[in-house]
Amino acid sequence: MKHFTKNMPFFLFVILTFSLVCTSSIRADTQTDPLPSWNESSSKQSIVRFVDLVTKEGGKNYVPPEKRIAVFDNDGTLWAEKPISVQFAFALDRVKALEPEHPEWKEEQPFKAVLEGDLKSILAGGGHTILQLVMATHTGMTIDEFEQIVSEWIGSARHPVTKRLYTEMVYQPMVELLAYLRSNGFKTYIVSGGGIEFMRPWVEKVYGIPPEQVVGSCIKVKYEMRGGGPVLMRLPEMDFIDDKDGKPVGINRFIGRRPLLAFGNSDGDLQMLQWTAAGSDSRYMGLVHHTDAEREWAYDRDVSLGRLDKALTEAEEKGWTVVNMKKDWKVIFPFQKKQ
Amino acid sequence: MKHFTKNMPFFLFVILTFSLVCTSSIRADTQTDPLPSWNESSSKQSIVRFVDLVTKEGGKNYVPPEKRIAVFDNDGTLWAEKPISVQFAFALDRVKALEPEHPEWKEEQPFKAVLEGDLKSILAGGGHTILQLVMATHTGMTIDEFEQIVSEWIGSARHPVTKRLYTEMVYQPMVELLAYLRSNGFKTYIVSGGGIEFMRPWVEKVYGIPPEQVVGSCIKVKYEMRGGGPVLMRLPEMDFIDDKDGKPVGINRFIGRRPLLAFGNSDGDLQMLQWTAAGSDSRYMGLVHHTDAEREWAYDRDVSLGRLDKALTEAEEKGWTVVNMKKDWKVIFPFQKKQ
Repeated sequence: MKHFTKNMPFFLFVILTFSLVCTSSIRADTQTDPLPSWNESSSKQSIVRFVDLVTKEGGKNYVPPEKRIAVFDNDGTLWAEKPISVQFAFALDRVKALEPEHPEWKEEQPFKAVLEGDLKSILAGGGHTILQLVMATHTGMTIDEFEQIVSEWIGSARHPVTKRLYTEMVYQPMVELLAYLRSNGFKTYIVSGGGIEFMRPWVEKVYGIPPEQVVGSCIKVKYEMRGGGPVLMRLPEMDFIDDKDGKPVGINRFIGRRPLLAFGNSDGDLQMLQWTAAGSDSRYMGLVHHTDAEREWAYDRDVSLGRLDKALTEAEEKGWTVVNMKKDWKVIFPFQKKQ
Repeated sequence: MKHFTKNMPFFLFVILTFSLVCTSSIRADTQTDPLPSWNESSSKQSIVRFVDLVTKEGGKNYVPPEKRIAVFDNDGTLWAEKPISVQFAFALDRVKALEPEHPEWKEEQPFKAVLEGDLKSILAGGGHTILQLVMATHTGMTIDEFEQIVSEWIGSARHPVTKRLYTEMVYQPMVELLAYLRSNGFKTYIVSGGGIEFMRPWVEKVYGIPPEQVVGSCIKVKYEMRGGGPVLMRLPEMDFIDDKDGKPVGINRFIGRRPLLAFGNSDGDLQMLQWTAAGSDSRYMGLVHHTDAEREWAYDRDVSLGRLDKALTEAEEKGWTVVNMKKDWKVIFPFQKKQ
C-alpha cells in the first residue's frame, strides 16, 4: 500500500462504497459461494478440494469433526500488520495515554522517542526496546482492567494510513475461510505471536473465534486478594512466547491435537506449518503471500516485520499453498467489498 | 473404603451386578431423570435450580451458552484419589517398567524404595521425591510416545483395592452432572493439578471432555527435528503447576472466561472456587465431601492428599454446595449402578 495516497481510483472506490459497508459486513455471504472474495484460482480450488476430502463420510480421507482443528496466525494472516503491528501501535498509544502519570518519560528512553513520534529510534532499539514498551503498557493492572483498556482502544483507534478502525483491516477472504471451515465442522483457532489478552476481547466479534480458542504469547499473572475479592494481576514478566518453535508448543499445550489445517504468512509460522504437515492424515498448509502493493502491501524476504523467506522456500519445495493476495483475492479488506 | 474387604453385602452386590455392567455404562441414562444417581436432596435440587435459572431465556439471570463455562477438578472430584493419586500410581508403575534400563535404580533413592514397594519412605520424602519420580518417568520422550504409554497403562492398570480399571473409579453422579450440564449448553472443562498430557488421552472417552478442554499442570516441551521430521520432546522441567493459586491462573490462560460453575473437593480448589464466586452474575460453587467410608473413603481436614479444610470452612460460611457423598449419592462408582 505504499502507493496508497497516489492511487485515486482506489480512493474513489473506497469513498463510494463507504456508506454501504459497516463492520458487520465482514461476515461472509455464504448463501451461494462460501468464498465469494476469492478468485477462482488454484488456491481457492485447493481449499475446497481439501475440505471436501476430509468431510466426505465414508471416504478414505474422512476426518471426524472433533479432529478438524484449523489454526491461523493473526498478524499478516488475518489482518494487516503494516506499517507496524497493531499491538505495537496499541503500546505506543498507551505510552501517550499514560504520560501524565509518568513525567519522567519525557527524558527517559525509549519513552521519550515514543512521545516525540520518533518511530525510527524505537525500531532501531530492536526486541529489547519493544519488550520494554510492552511491559510498561501491558502490565501492572488486573486482567479485567486490561480487557477494558484493550476494548476501548480497539473500538476507536484507527490505522495510520487508511484511517479505518483496525478491526476493519482484516482480510475479507480469510474471514470467509474461517466461516467456511466452521460450517464444515472445523474448530478455528488463532495461534499468534501476539498477546492472548490483547486479542481475546475482540476476536469473537471480528473473526467468530471465541476467547478460549486463542493461543498466543502471554505474561505472568498473579492471583491475589484486593479489597476483599480475588484479582489476577498482570506482572511485568514474559511467561510464554508463541512464535517460531513456540507455536507447535503452544498448539500442543492449549489444544492437545495436531491441526488438520494451518495458515500463516511469515517465517514465524514455519514450525507451525511443519508440525501440521508432519501429521499422518491429509493436511493443509497455507501461506498468505503479501503481493499487492496497491490494495495492501507487498513484502516477503526483505523485511524484518513479517519476513517470509525460509517458509516461502519450504512451501514451494513441499507444495504447500501460497496464496497470492494480488491474484487470488477479489477484495482484501471488507470495506472494498462490492455490495 | 477402609472396610472394603470386611463388607460382604457390598462385595455381594458388586459380584451380582458385575456381569451387567461395562465401561460404556458410565454414560448417564438421561431419558427421564438426567441425574439418576443423585438422591433427591438439597445438593441435587440446588444444581437443577441453578441450571434452570441461567438457561431460562428472558429470565434476568439468563446466561448465553458461550458463557456457560463449567470447571471441574479431577482427582477426588471426578474420580477416586485414594489410597494414592492415579498419576502417582502411574509413576510408580513406570519406575518398575523402566527398571531394566536403569540398573542403578536398585541402589538409588527414591527408586530403590519404589522397586521394594516401600510406599511409606517414598511419601515421607514429600514433594521433592514425588517430583523426582515424575520427572524420571514422564519426560525424555516425545509427546506422542508419552501418549502411547499413558493410553496403554490406563487401559490395563488396576486400582490396588477394588482391582477395577482406574477409568471405572470415576464418580457416576459427577459423570451424569457433566452430561447434564453439556445438554444445557455448558462447555465442561477439567482444571486439575494433574498433568495435562496424563489426562488428555482418556478423558474424552470417560468424561466426554475433549483434550482441548483440559487444563492442568505441565512440563516444558521442546520442538526439534528428529529423523527428518519435527517432534515435541518432553523436558524434565516443570512449566506450570495448576493447583491452588495456579487454578485461576490456568483458567484465565486457557479459557479466558470466568467459570459459571466450579466443582472441587480440596483446599487445592479453594482459589478456583473463590475466582468463580467473584463473578458478577449468578455462579455455582460446589465441593465433593468424602464422607462414605463404606463405598469410597471418608476424609477431609486430617489428611495430606486431598485435604479439605479451609475450603470446607469457606463453603459453609458462603453457602456453597457441599455434596455429602454418603447422603447425596445413590451410587458412587459406575459398577455399583443398578440396571
